[in-house]
Amino acid sequence: MILHLGSDILEESDLVLIEEVHGILDEPRSRVEEIMKTAVEQVNQPRLNSAMRHLLEAGGKRMRATIPWLVGHATGGAHDGHVELGATLELIHNFTLIHDDIMDDDPLRRGRPSVHVEFDVATALNAGDALFAIAIERLAGAADVPQHLALRIVRNIAGMVRRLSDGQQMDMDFESRDGVSEDEYITMIEGKTAAIFEIAGWGGALIAGASESVAEAMKIWGRELGLCFQIVDDTIDLLADSTKSGKQQGSDLMQGKQTLVVIHALNHATPEQRSVINAVLGQGEAVEPDSLASCLDVLASTGSIDHALKRAHLSHDRAIDSLSLLKEGEAKDLLVALTHHQLEREA
Amino acid sequence: MILHLGSDILEESDLVLIEEVHGILDEPRSRVEEIMKTAVEQVNQPRLNSAMRHLLEAGGKRMRATIPWLVGHATGGAHDGHVELGATLELIHNFTLIHDDIMDDDPLRRGRPSVHVEFDVATALNAGDALFAIAIERLAGAADVPQHLALRIVRNIAGMVRRLSDGQQMDMDFESRDGVSEDEYITMIEGKTAAIFEIAGWGGALIAGASESVAEAMKIWGRELGLCFQIVDDTIDLLADSTKSGKQQGSDLMQGKQTLVVIHALNHATPEQRSVINAVLGQGEAVEPDSLASCLDVLASTGSIDHALKRAHLSHDRAIDSLSLLKEGEAKDLLVALTHHQLEREA
Repeated sequence: MILHLGSDILEESDLVLIEEVHGILDEPRSRVEEIMKTAVEQVNQPRLNSAMRHLLEAGGKRMRATIPWLVGHATGGAHDGHVELGATLELIHNFTLIHDDIMDDDPLRRGRPSVHVEFDVATALNAGDALFAIAIERLAGAADVPQHLALRIVRNIAGMVRRLSDGQQMDMDFESRDGVSEDEYITMIEGKTAAIFEIAGWGGALIAGASESVAEAMKIWGRELGLCFQIVDDTIDLLADSTKSGKQQGSDLMQGKQTLVVIHALNHATPEQRSVINAVLGQGEAVEPDSLASCLDVLASTGSIDHALKRAHLSHDRAIDSLSLLKEGEAKDLLVALTHHQLEREA
Repeated sequence: MILHLGSDILEESDLVLIEEVHGILDEPRSRVEEIMKTAVEQVNQPRLNSAMRHLLEAGGKRMRATIPWLVGHATGGAHDGHVELGATLELIHNFTLIHDDIMDDDPLRRGRPSVHVEFDVATALNAGDALFAIAIERLAGAADVPQHLALRIVRNIAGMVRRLSDGQQMDMDFESRDGVSEDEYITMIEGKTAAIFEIAGWGGALIAGASESVAEAMKIWGRELGLCFQIVDDTIDLLADSTKSGKQQGSDLMQGKQTLVVIHALNHATPEQRSVINAVLGQGEAVEPDSLASCLDVLASTGSIDHALKRAHLSHDRAIDSLSLLKEGEAKDLLVALTHHQLEREA
């Protein structure tokens, strides 16, 4: 089973650039952490405050926190406004993870008990609401985001959360449905995952002073990056062990999630293969390791994992194309490297 | 047991004015309904869309929907911006009701099954999130709210939701605590209930073009109106049957909610009376009707219901005082009548 589909794409020089990204992002990343910490301090009730910090303090890749800054860097200049936008998107991402974990009853997140497991459903629900609220409150009051753009960005962020909810509902609905199509899956992840990357790209460009056409191109870049990210993420659920992903291997499968891999496999499996899949799909965590292993073998032998990774590749290529408007240089190269990296990551 | 404490306050002419309020509000109220309906239509997933409409279509008093308009009328002129603000606050109110009902596991709301009962917890949670999102999205895109104010109002609305979450968490925490003080209760309802009335008053004045000092006065009016409303609401839970309130009589009591009435009673009851209260407080819905009736008698004979209504009176008086900056006239009289009405209402 090949996850490293991207090895023909990610070159030695990209690896250097990824290191560069890490270096260049140290400062904005630590400022995002500071903003999130300050924002959470506005909540007084001790248990609610702890619940809000539980997931935030567990770390995470902070991709949504730093993409606006990288985009700003490549489209006119990164500044404090990008840090504010990054903090808002990361807070909202954490809010949606907490709520999604309640809805999906996922016990583990970032290697720690989910918020509703560590606290309780009521507190986790409330913590998610409060994170959403402080995210908007913070951005609407940010001095470094130009006033004439802030309201427009806030409106689009709220619209993004609406799309996230729509996507999450589709995702849940798919679990109890037969015959979900690949197009439906793509529509679902456009809302559930890609919408937030869209805003990171679009908003990052706008507050860097980029033109509307560059902002639109960065919106497409964000969307395609998000689609690529999510499809790869779905395969990581199948391939990675919990020490890397912070989640149990095959957990989406056992929960009955209809991913591109599953949809393709159900459409291309023999009756025998189909019954091997159905012995795991949606059967909960009591599934035997042997059954899971057999199911994973079927998903590979039907070519479904490769199929999904090819779709990830397509979005990767579209994302790269959308960068063509940008001026050549190191800042653009970093976005290219970040895009390549989506096909290489292991968690 | 006297609920109509306000009979010395609400005069014949006020009743006429209340009728007037109803007449004058017909148009803005129907426009708020139209806006909310349009906003919900942006959510595509059918089950999520139905869940969002379930509570909205059950009606409700729509106080938060119409107060901005009444305040605008009295502070510079009501216009479409007030309708937009009202729709946003009503959508947010509905979002918080759906989430509160999950957190408190309340089965009934507005005489219908709660959203999480009619659908399921995951869908209800998601519907609340989506309602919050479309409320902000709508207001941030409203053409009729002056641009220089819209961002400030959005920021304060997000801050209000943060305070709502804080208040809700205090409320839940109180259920498992002894010795909650009256001050703590007031702080709790300032966040959980009064914050939204504050914005209705403050924002309504601002977008009518009122001065900052008038807007501040209307913020205080809103807060005190909200406190009065909530304290009276708590007594209605004790006194009204479910056909009027849409909730089971004594449900807050059986759930263990620490209201002003309960806090006062626990501080002033004899040991015998205290055990009568504790046989109901937090004991869930299996409580016998006789036990509930005895408990209600104790709450009356300790003077606790009167005590709470006196506190409601105090907030009423402060609300009336805060209207002193307004120009005399019918528009102001309507706000006075609405304030008086809080002491008279039965559901």
